[in-house]
Amino acid sequence: MSLEEVCAEVLGRVTPSEEERRRVYEIAEGVKRRLAEELSRVGLEAEVRVEGSVAKDTWLSGDADIDVFALLPPSVPREALKTTFMEAARRAASGYRQVERWAEHPYLECPLNGLRLNLVPCYRVEPGRWLSATDRTPYHTRYVLQRLNERMKGEVRLLKAFVRGIGCYGAEIKVGGFSGYLCELLAIHYGGFLETLREAAEWRKPTIIDPEGYYRGREDEAAEIFQHPLIVVDPVDRGRNVASAVRVEKLSLFIAASRMFLRKPSLKFFFPPKREPAPPQQLINAIEARGTSLIAAAFNPIEAPPDILWGQLYRAERAIGRLLRKNGFEVLRSGVWSDEKRVCILVYELGAGRLPGVVRHVGPPIWMVEHSQRFLEEHLGSERTLSGPTLEGDRWVVYLRRERRDAVQLLREKLGDGGVDVGVPRLLSESIKETLHVCSEGEIPRLCSKYVGFTQFLTDFLHGRPTWLE
Amino acid sequence: MSLEEVCAEVLGRVTPSEEERRRVYEIAEGVKRRLAEELSRVGLEAEVRVEGSVAKDTWLSGDADIDVFALLPPSVPREALKTTFMEAARRAASGYRQVERWAEHPYLECPLNGLRLNLVPCYRVEPGRWLSATDRTPYHTRYVLQRLNERMKGEVRLLKAFVRGIGCYGAEIKVGGFSGYLCELLAIHYGGFLETLREAAEWRKPTIIDPEGYYRGREDEAAEIFQHPLIVVDPVDRGRNVASAVRVEKLSLFIAASRMFLRKPSLKFFFPPKREPAPPQQLINAIEARGTSLIAAAFNPIEAPPDILWGQLYRAERAIGRLLRKNGFEVLRSGVWSDEKRVCILVYELGAGRLPGVVRHVGPPIWMVEHSQRFLEEHLGSERTLSGPTLEGDRWVVYLRRERRDAVQLLREKLGDGGVDVGVPRLLSESIKETLHVCSEGEIPRLCSKYVGFTQFLTDFLHGRPTWLE
Repeated sequence: MSLEEVCAEVLGRVTPSEEERRRVYEIAEGVKRRLAEELSRVGLEAEVRVEGSVAKDTWLSGDADIDVFALLPPSVPREALKTTFMEAARRAASGYRQVERWAEHPYLECPLNGLRLNLVPCYRVEPGRWLSATDRTPYHTRYVLQRLNERMKGEVRLLKAFVRGIGCYGAEIKVGGFSGYLCELLAIHYGGFLETLREAAEWRKPTIIDPEGYYRGREDEAAEIFQHPLIVVDPVDRGRNVASAVRVEKLSLFIAASRMFLRKPSLKFFFPPKREPAPPQQLINAIEARGTSLIAAAFNPIEAPPDILWGQLYRAERAIGRLLRKNGFEVLRSGVWSDEKRVCILVYELGAGRLPGVVRHVGPPIWMVEHSQRFLEEHLGSERTLSGPTLEGDRWVVYLRRERRDAVQLLREKLGDGGVDVGVPRLLSESIKETLHVCSEGEIPRLCSKYVGFTQFLTDFLHGRPTWLE
Repeated sequence: MSLEEVCAEVLGRVTPSEEERRRVYEIAEGVKRRLAEELSRVGLEAEVRVEGSVAKDTWLSGDADIDVFALLPPSVPREALKTTFMEAARRAASGYRQVERWAEHPYLECPLNGLRLNLVPCYRVEPGRWLSATDRTPYHTRYVLQRLNERMKGEVRLLKAFVRGIGCYGAEIKVGGFSGYLCELLAIHYGGFLETLREAAEWRKPTIIDPEGYYRGREDEAAEIFQHPLIVVDPVDRGRNVASAVRVEKLSLFIAASRMFLRKPSLKFFFPPKREPAPPQQLINAIEARGTSLIAAAFNPIEAPPDILWGQLYRAERAIGRLLRKNGFEVLRSGVWSDEKRVCILVYELGAGRLPGVVRHVGPPIWMVEHSQRFLEEHLGSERTLSGPTLEGDRWVVYLRRERRDAVQLLREKLGDGGVDVGVPRLLSESIKETLHVCSEGEIPRLCSKYVGFTQFLTDFLHGRPTWLE
């Protein structure tokens, strides 16, 4: 298929049908009206508007986020957002399943069939006078809407679908990728979908995109201020990088996928085929054939918003990786999987799960008289000393019995108390302390049969390759 | 025992008896007379003199080197040293077992019971006009003799016995330690045995000793010229470092032993107890208990002077160590043993003799467009690729099947042709090509039963600790 054919086919699939549109607008308008009524009933003066991708007509078919915003005057106390606003919102959305969210900011989420409805409070303020995290949204909506015609809405949808297909869609911590607003800005700035990919293929580190030219001629300054690998200066706030959530890995993935797509256009960038989850025993055989060792640490999730949970999971993954390396294990790769409800699993592929019994321990150079003497005294009498002390060059060296040869045992020992002192974040450590289960490849089939999503994850983990590279 | 008691006891043991003296001088004078006669008979004008430790009366009882020197006029062609002189020497030493040596310089060696007789040619030249490697010797003898009284001869003997006891005696490449002349200079310069040890305990790197003050006020220059860890400027040749053969390991050993002896005087520094060679199976059990792997490469020695043989052995030891490390093996320690006649054995203690089946291979950063593309093309199609390519940070990474997992097999493969391309020196590579036998711990008992000295070596190797530290 040519580039044009792929784009046409994708556009057909991701543009909402008239029927979907009707349903979405109906829900949006209904909730908007009811929320306005409820707010006025409790005496909260507010303008209620539909914002986000529904307002901009850039959502992907089957994946709408209906954002109904209440713009409140700055005089409303913050506390009232959690109380008065949320009560009104709950009433306005009665009849829908409701989840209250308050990470940084309170809002009400209602998951519907194939779409999500969000009732969100914000303050109506002048640009730059932001009082809460969502105050910029109405300005974002207006900025984007003014710059999109019908063709450009399609270009935005193509870019969003591409970014979603390669696993880079979403500014939440779990993903660390591109928000919808970022996709819109890129498509507008470069003038289209393919134009964005062609530019991305050439991006350098750091890439600075400044649609309104706030830093024109002072790009170095922007790089200095934001310190992120991708910098897209928010047209409605010169002090904000719209791409601040984009991790270097996801940025790199986007660049690599852009190059590959332009070279070899294919639908699989947009609609990646799911790999068939391998039967657990086949996974184990694959690991054994590799001649490496796979260990897993499983524990219960914590009660926290997903951004908190995933932030702590990634930090724990790194901390435990450091712990393994510090104890001499070769960590080839690691990964995190969680269904956010029943279990979190950290996975490490190690060169070997069991280490040699001897550690080479290099002491001070002979020229450091006191240190040398202390080193000799310490190791001559120790029953951990297997060989030496001996001189290698001008340094004392001893060969010590390794204290922890087994990776599973090491983790059980060091994480048994939650692992705070090896760097596991606090909230997670509570759960680890109570529910940790560490196992090696032999027990992994049991984990797989308990958690189907984990089998899928492990299959992808072992392939370790984006599907668009297959 | 106190320092004084130890020194007195040692002095008693290393000072030659009247009877030993008589025998040594008798042999020396007899050979001197006969060599003079033989040289005059073939028309070589020469002064024949006894040099070295016998002339200086500083030899250690039971370990005399009788050096009979013929001082020839510079007009004698170098070729004549190998022909006319050696013929005369052989006749002068008739009745003794004879070994011709010509490493740098030809001479005749006659091993006798408990001593060695050497018939050595040199040129009688002014200082600085050296024509051959041994021309300085008569000047060395004169310099030392003029500075030794009876007490000081004892001090020199103590120092030599100490250096010998801790395994640092000898400037030959096998040892890389202190020559007899170096010991004499140190004892003279510092005024005695204990004085030398007290100074050595405080040596810094580099230590510059310049008895005649040739570099007074320009010590940095001497350090720059000689580039050795210990610099002792030859009183008879300001361009020569008497300690140039001293390797940093032996220097460090001497310093460490000096400190320890002064702290805890003991006879074992001078007369180290031999460790009982462990039964081979016990050695193997010890290695197994350590949880490491021991491999040995055995091959025939080459026909070459010991300095050549040992120089090449040490270079081969390092080259093969590099080869193992480059292929991912953790080399904990290595050692060389040879009886110089039947076999040479290189020994490596490895963390593991078999490696994981996967190698992590880090590719180019995404920013290098061409490199990235080539990397993808290379690894996407390869059947060595087990996982990936994937992005870690901004770099491509693949996980490849390791080609050589087994250390013994690696050495067999890479040394089968002599190993010149991995850095084995030429002469040795010939023998390795023809006679190499690589084995792991299982076969080591067979090597031990064939070569008793090797069992002793392996026992010491596994202890890996100087006996004076026990």
